[in-house]
Amino acid sequence: MTFGFLLFPRLEELDLIGPWEMIGFWGKYFQGPQRCFMVAEKMPPVICAKGLSINPHVDFSQCPPLDYLLVPGGEGTRTEVNNEALIRFVAEQGNCCKAVLSVCTGTFILYRAGLILGKRVTTHWASLDRLRTLGDVEVVEERVVQNGHIWTAAGVSAGIDLALAFIADVAGEKTASNVQLGSEYYPSDKLYSSAYKNEMTPQYLKRMYHS
Amino acid sequence: MTFGFLLFPRLEELDLIGPWEMIGFWGKYFQGPQRCFMVAEKMPPVICAKGLSINPHVDFSQCPPLDYLLVPGGEGTRTEVNNEALIRFVAEQGNCCKAVLSVCTGTFILYRAGLILGKRVTTHWASLDRLRTLGDVEVVEERVVQNGHIWTAAGVSAGIDLALAFIADVAGEKTASNVQLGSEYYPSDKLYSSAYKNEMTPQYLKRMYHS
Repeated sequence: MTFGFLLFPRLEELDLIGPWEMIGFWGKYFQGPQRCFMVAEKMPPVICAKGLSINPHVDFSQCPPLDYLLVPGGEGTRTEVNNEALIRFVAEQGNCCKAVLSVCTGTFILYRAGLILGKRVTTHWASLDRLRTLGDVEVVEERVVQNGHIWTAAGVSAGIDLALAFIADVAGEKTASNVQLGSEYYPSDKLYSSAYKNEMTPQYLKRMYHS
Repeated sequence: MTFGFLLFPRLEELDLIGPWEMIGFWGKYFQGPQRCFMVAEKMPPVICAKGLSINPHVDFSQCPPLDYLLVPGGEGTRTEVNNEALIRFVAEQGNCCKAVLSVCTGTFILYRAGLILGKRVTTHWASLDRLRTLGDVEVVEERVVQNGHIWTAAGVSAGIDLALAFIADVAGEKTASNVQLGSEYYPSDKLYSSAYKNEMTPQYLKRMYHS
């Protein structure tokens, strides 16, 4: 199995590395994808939104057919939706992949690549209305959404939950359980102060603090 | 404020990038550290445990005095505890920093640097016994542990919880709340299958599933 992780300038670091870690654990210890790599349009280092500098493993021209593709979000998506080479790569690979996953505003790249027309999808809470204005997608306010071979996640850290749900779907709950234990992903449920009460927050979060 | 993130070969990716994302949000939007960078012994790319290739921003010789230092864990710690240049760097900076934070087996690097003698600390669940055998530290089975200016976290993903707790301590709950909202860190509480019932799991986790 080949699993490609898309790089582009000003992507959000945790969108990418949360899933990378979970998928990497699966591949390294639990018979998951043996070939996980970072793929970018070109080979020079990619500078992320918070300044991390990553070296791609392959460029678009060298990239083999992918079984799975993950597209992170971040402020860079605002310009990358107009990058024809990147959109063409996502469209071509995405139409042949067994599954395409996006985190946060990565959903806007899937949209431009024609992969989510009419589908149930989500994105970062602050971009839900912007996704709705596109019109021909069904926007839902969940943390992780599967619709056929398209998986989308809410903002930034939600990519970790996405990756575990995806592993459970492909390889079973036992494998997801082992990855969860290995990465010690038993997160604190602490809600700091009151920012989460912002009325723009998504339905899954409102359910969480009203229950 | 300067915040350094230590790089070394075969560090665990999420140990590093979980805190990097949270501290980066704080710095970029909420008056947190203005200078966050990756610091390594030398400037060539650092290859992490799951294959991510990162370019350092500075090497040890160029690194300014740090206000804060984060040390990730990973399989690379097994050899780095014997890297004199790295241990000297951590000792010298760590003794002058306002706070030193470690994630997962990064605790063993703090130990070798002489920063945690007699202190309450933690590490990845699978390394708790190995940490206990060192003898002159008090090992506790919590997800995040503060002891004076030393902060340690449990395995891999616990670095995210560590970073938010640290931000709340330094800048207040309101700021931590804003970072939590921005990164949409309202993680799922789903426990997959039964791996978490492993008898080696830490006390904080046993409390979680017995309650």
